[in-house]
Order: sequence, then structure tokens, then C-alpha cells
Amino acid sequence: MAKVAILGFGTVGSGVAQVLTENGAHIGEKVHSPVELKYVLDVRDFPDSPFAPLVIHDFSLIENDPEVDIVVETIGGARIAWEFTKRALTAGKSVVTSNKELVAEHGCELMELAREHGVSYLYEASVGGGIPIIRPLKQCLAANELQEITGILNGTTNYILMRMIRGGLSFDDALKEAQAKGYAEADPTADVEGHDACRKICILASLAFGRHIYPAQVPTEGISAVTLADVAYAGSRGCKLKLLGRAIREEDGRVTAFVAPHLVGEEDPLSGVDDVFNAIKVKGNAIGDVMFYGRGAGKLPTASAVVADVMEAVRTKGAPKYLDWGPGAPDAVRGPDSLESPWYVRLSAPSARAAAIMAGEPLAREDAPEGETAFLTRPMTRAALDAALAGEKPLSVFRVLEG
Amino acid sequence: MAKVAILGFGTVGSGVAQVLTENGAHIGEKVHSPVELKYVLDVRDFPDSPFAPLVIHDFSLIENDPEVDIVVETIGGARIAWEFTKRALTAGKSVVTSNKELVAEHGCELMELAREHGVSYLYEASVGGGIPIIRPLKQCLAANELQEITGILNGTTNYILMRMIRGGLSFDDALKEAQAKGYAEADPTADVEGHDACRKICILASLAFGRHIYPAQVPTEGISAVTLADVAYAGSRGCKLKLLGRAIREEDGRVTAFVAPHLVGEEDPLSGVDDVFNAIKVKGNAIGDVMFYGRGAGKLPTASAVVADVMEAVRTKGAPKYLDWGPGAPDAVRGPDSLESPWYVRLSAPSARAAAIMAGEPLAREDAPEGETAFLTRPMTRAALDAALAGEKPLSVFRVLEG
Repeated sequence: MAKVAILGFGTVGSGVAQVLTENGAHIGEKVHSPVELKYVLDVRDFPDSPFAPLVIHDFSLIENDPEVDIVVETIGGARIAWEFTKRALTAGKSVVTSNKELVAEHGCELMELAREHGVSYLYEASVGGGIPIIRPLKQCLAANELQEITGILNGTTNYILMRMIRGGLSFDDALKEAQAKGYAEADPTADVEGHDACRKICILASLAFGRHIYPAQVPTEGISAVTLADVAYAGSRGCKLKLLGRAIREEDGRVTAFVAPHLVGEEDPLSGVDDVFNAIKVKGNAIGDVMFYGRGAGKLPTASAVVADVMEAVRTKGAPKYLDWGPGAPDAVRGPDSLESPWYVRLSAPSARAAAIMAGEPLAREDAPEGETAFLTRPMTRAALDAALAGEKPLSVFRVLEG
Repeated sequence: MAKVAILGFGTVGSGVAQVLTENGAHIGEKVHSPVELKYVLDVRDFPDSPFAPLVIHDFSLIENDPEVDIVVETIGGARIAWEFTKRALTAGKSVVTSNKELVAEHGCELMELAREHGVSYLYEASVGGGIPIIRPLKQCLAANELQEITGILNGTTNYILMRMIRGGLSFDDALKEAQAKGYAEADPTADVEGHDACRKICILASLAFGRHIYPAQVPTEGISAVTLADVAYAGSRGCKLKLLGRAIREEDGRVTAFVAPHLVGEEDPLSGVDDVFNAIKVKGNAIGDVMFYGRGAGKLPTASAVVADVMEAVRTKGAPKYLDWGPGAPDAVRGPDSLESPWYVRLSAPSARAAAIMAGEPLAREDAPEGETAFLTRPMTRAALDAALAGEKPLSVFRVLEG
């Protein structure tokens, strides 16, 4: 018998309670041991919930209850969740989390703490919602040197970009629609400015390359500067604008990691990822390109990833744990400054300097204002691009993803 | 120290030897034990291969060598591979295979035999080449009732269909090109007639639904009847023709399984899967749709999946094994006769009967011969379609995949 406590009874937490209950018989069978929900910790009461009798407000009840084997942390943030996670692990309980911020900021130390106490810290649900990605990545890793990870990691921004591309909505209108549909928060900063995607690429890159990569080390650019003009020019070459998190292993062992909008060609499987879906493309030296695709958020998909981890914690109880990655270092990561790629550039006026760096013909769109110029460049660094344009101030500059 | 023997030194077998050697240090580190290739069994000698000193011709050397923990079977087919697999398992060695035919025909009994002898029978590489699918499917299964699997499971036919769609080649010319590129065998029957896809959907469905599903139980239709006329009509509605393997859990617990060409709409992520890529879409009750995508074949991708299984066999040595699925039954599976869907129909002459079942306007294409008629129907069974067309003999009939 394994007993579970859930911290935080919000969307994901209540989904976990639901999946544990609805698929309970099935789950118990699979792990050869019944799995039972014992506590739900929240500051609120939920008098109308079927789980009302389990609701408590004092974490120390969980911490001091030797019957609780597994704590599910779905509080979010890196403050109280961090404290409770440390206390749960120290009390010898495995912790399963959907909290990307906490894993991205403190994953390495929490895994260390788990190992010290012979328990697990599992985080499948922190990236890609219900998409199985953490465990498959470990499997890819098994027989591959991983070289590169490229992901559409945030469903909200992907939805907004899709509505701009397909619906012709402005960024502001698409954001409002996403908020109305419940896909974006009232304060959309974490999604729109790329912080959410940044945390996720940090987790994936830490796992893939073996050293903790911190959000503060990863230059992050959101989508609020993307305009309908850019969408139209990109579309004229069969490209879609997508917010990508990228991590590339360099020959010197360091990792280039960043988050930014990119033009993605239609032959790339990432270009077909629409709506609130997420996709993560992984390149390994033996495996080539592999992609994982699915709903990146949502109550039941995320809850189902949490429950899969709960089952893993039950199954591997008492077995030795290995660290998924080691500590980070200030020089382990670098921004994309030295990464060459083609660029998309939009200028307000014709430029004599553009000809020297342009690849192919200039781009065209309907109803472009007099003089507006847009083009793709040959591959170069951002510094080389800025030098070539010396003094000219582009309206938009985005990288083009190379295949 | 774990010692490995490879049976069959063809494309996959030699790839396994290469990956084990090139990524050897990395692999040893990951499983906390060195992994060493001891034998390569083949009927041929390979005097110019770096692995020449390991080549032997007598299986009993492997069978009787207590140092060999793991046997990699990449012979293929269900004759000699079957015999050697049984003998290896009986001798207490784990077996890792890329042999879809053997798993589809005898997986259940071989897993039973492995369990009896406290070893593993692992088959990640038998489906989807290097795409991690078997283990993620187990993970999806952990917290989900799986409802449906839909896959592009054969790279050769997907390449042929892509060349028909994008290149305007006839089926015969596209097949010849695939053969010239090494994507299709001299005898392409197993690919083109759908047998390869059938074996793979059998393996996936057995794992997802818990009972062995045999190839002989799964109605299978290949792509040789697909014409450029069909490709053009499908394209006029934004659909692509794709060969799909499908398995659906019915309410009575039985499984509807079949392989057939389908029209797939552009909003479906399967429609963007081109070239020799494979993709497997899985629907679970909590997770929703999840898709796995990558190269479905090829020396190194497949070898890397085999090596991941070798590492799992090392890691789980001595741990209790559970059966992935149980025995099959004649009534566990049914064909798609009672499955309703929209249909694509092409007739050589206008039909008064079409109006009663048609959905939307008739389809159009350039240079259609006088009188040719094509249309999509509303959802119905094949029997209802045949009854509605009473007596008219369609040139082509394919299902339309519903979202």
C-alpha cells in the first residue's frame, strides 16, 4: 500500500486526485500495490469537493505521518513549494512535481537531497504537460550523445501565433482571445515574454547535457514584438513564426541555450504544431531527429504525467537513485551570440547595405507601406548582421531555423 | 561487466556493434557497469570488419557461455530467430530484438519463457526504429486507459505516397525510385502490401490493450491500388493519402484493428509526416492525443533503440519481470466492418445514387476523364456504403480519418 499527499488543490492537484481515484484499480494493478490518496493540503477548504474529508491546512501532519510515501507538489513557484519539497524529501518521502520553476531553479540540489534520503524527486509533468518527454529523453540518452533540443514549449504563445498566422489577428487581439479561452493568464508575462519556455528548455537541457542550466543563464526573447507584417513576409516563403526554446551542445562541451521567435520552414515537423500543442525535437548522434508531440498543458494530461511518476515512485521504492544531472557552472552556458543562422530582417526603407547579405529575392506582402523592405540573409552571427546593417535600425529581426 | 552476443550481422546488427563500441564509455557510465561485445554470430565471415575476431558460426557457443548475459537478435523472420531466441532465454540470457515479425507472431509466449527463466525479452526496436515508443507507451499506460492508436508505421510506403503527392510520380515510378534509394527491397511486398505495418500495429495494440493480437487477425490493405487521380482528389480537400495502422478499444473490450490507406486532413499532425518518417498517435482517457515521430528505420536509429534495451537489460538484471501482455483469443479482435467513417469514393461515371450519401460538393481535379466522379460521404460503415452504391463498382474507395 502506497499513500499519497497532494500539496495544492488547484487545476493540476485536483486533476491528480481525480486520475488517482478514477483509474485507481488499474493503477494498483500496474504497480502491484494499491495507491491511496490520504491528504490534500491547501489554504482553502473545498466543502463541495468529494475530496473535502482529505483536506488539511498543516504541512507538518504530512511531514510527520510515516504512512505517507509520496508527496505530489502542484503548488507552483519557488518559495513555499521549495520549502515543503525540502522538508518532504528530508522526511524520507518521494516528491513528484509539475512545478517547472522549482525544477529549473533548484532541480539539482533537490535531486541530491532526494538521493541522500534514499527517495526520488520526479518531474515528468514539469515539461510538456502530458507528453512523455523526460523518460523518453533518458532513453534516447541511454544510447546516444544528444546534440540538440528544439522545442515549442509554451502552448499559450503557440496559440497566439497561430491566430495571427491563420486568423489575421493582431498580437493584442490574439492575446485577448487566448485570455478569453482560458489559455492565457490575466497577467500573461510569463508566457508571452518567454519565461515559461525558458524554464522548460533549462530542464530539458540540464537532463540532456548533464549539468544544471539556470534560467538566468539563458537569453530569452518573447513574442510581443512579432507583427502581422512579419507573419505575412514569413508566410510568403512558406515559413511560420514559432517561439522556440533551443539548446545545442558545442564542441567545447559548453551549451548554447536561448529562447526566441524563429521562422520555421514548412518541411520542418515543428511547423505543423498548432494550437496549444507542444512539441520537442531531439537530435542524437545515433537516433537522428525524434519528435514528441502533444498537449503541453491542461488538467488531465498534466495530472496523468504526475500519476505516471507516482507509479514510478511506488515501483522503484528502495532502489538506488542516480542524479539526472550535476551542478551548473557560470561558464557552462553561453548565449547564441556565436551561433550562425540565416536571419529575417524587416526595414522601414530600402537599404543599399542589404544586398551584400541578402539570400535570394526580397520578400513581398500585400499592402506593404511605401519603402518597407524585408528579406532573408545568408547564415551569419547577429554581430555580423548588425555590422553589415551598420547604423540602420531594423523594425524586426528574427532567426530562421535551419533544418 | 555485462557481455553481449549479436545474432545476425546485417544492417541493424552491425549498427549495434558500432553504437556499443563508439558510445561504449558513455553507456558503461550510464548503467554503472561496462558493457562488452563478445560474439557476433552469422553464417558469413567478415574478414574486413573490425569485429572479425568476434565472428562465430555456432550458436551453441553463445548458448553455453555463462559469461553472455544478453543476446541481441537481429536475424529477422520467425524461423531460426525463433529457435535461437527460445534457446537463449532458456539458457538464462535476456534477449533484445528488432524483429517485428517474431514479436508480432510469438511475443506473448517468448515473454512468458523469459519470465520463467528470470530474464527479459525486450523489443523497443521492433516498432518505429529509433523512435522511443514501447517504453513511452508503457508510461502512457501507467496512468491512462488507452483508447486508440493510429500510426504511420512503414517508411517505405510513406515515401512512395509522398513522391506521388509532391512529385506527381505514379505508384510504379515512386516504387522504383524508393528501390533505387535503398528505401524499398527488391521484393517490396511486405512493405507495399501493408504486412510490415500490420506486424507493428499488432505489437502496439497488444501492449496497449493487454492481449496478444496476431497479424492473421488484422485485415490488411496496402497502397498498390492508390492512383494519382486519388491523390489529386484528396489534395483538392487538403487531404493526403497515408497508409495507417489502427487499433481501437471498443466498449465491449474487443479491439478493432486494421491496416489501410486513409485520407488524412491537414489539421491532423499525421498529415505532416513525410519522407521515410514514422509517427504514432496515441489517445488516452487522461492524456488526450500524444504523438511520437522520427525515423522508422535505418541502421543507427534502430541500433540505438536496441542498445537502449541492452542497457535496460543490464540495469534490471535480477529484478522481477511482468508480462507486457497476455495470450490472445480468436474473438479478441475484429475487423473494421462495424467502424463508421466518412469515405472517399471515385466512380467512372456519374451516379444517381451518390447524392444520397455525399457530404458537401463533389471533388474536382484537372484533366479528369469525361464522367469521372469523386466525392466524400457522410460517416457510415462499409456495408452501408456498398448497399447505397448498390451494383456500382467504384474505381477507388478509401476511408477518411476522423479527428
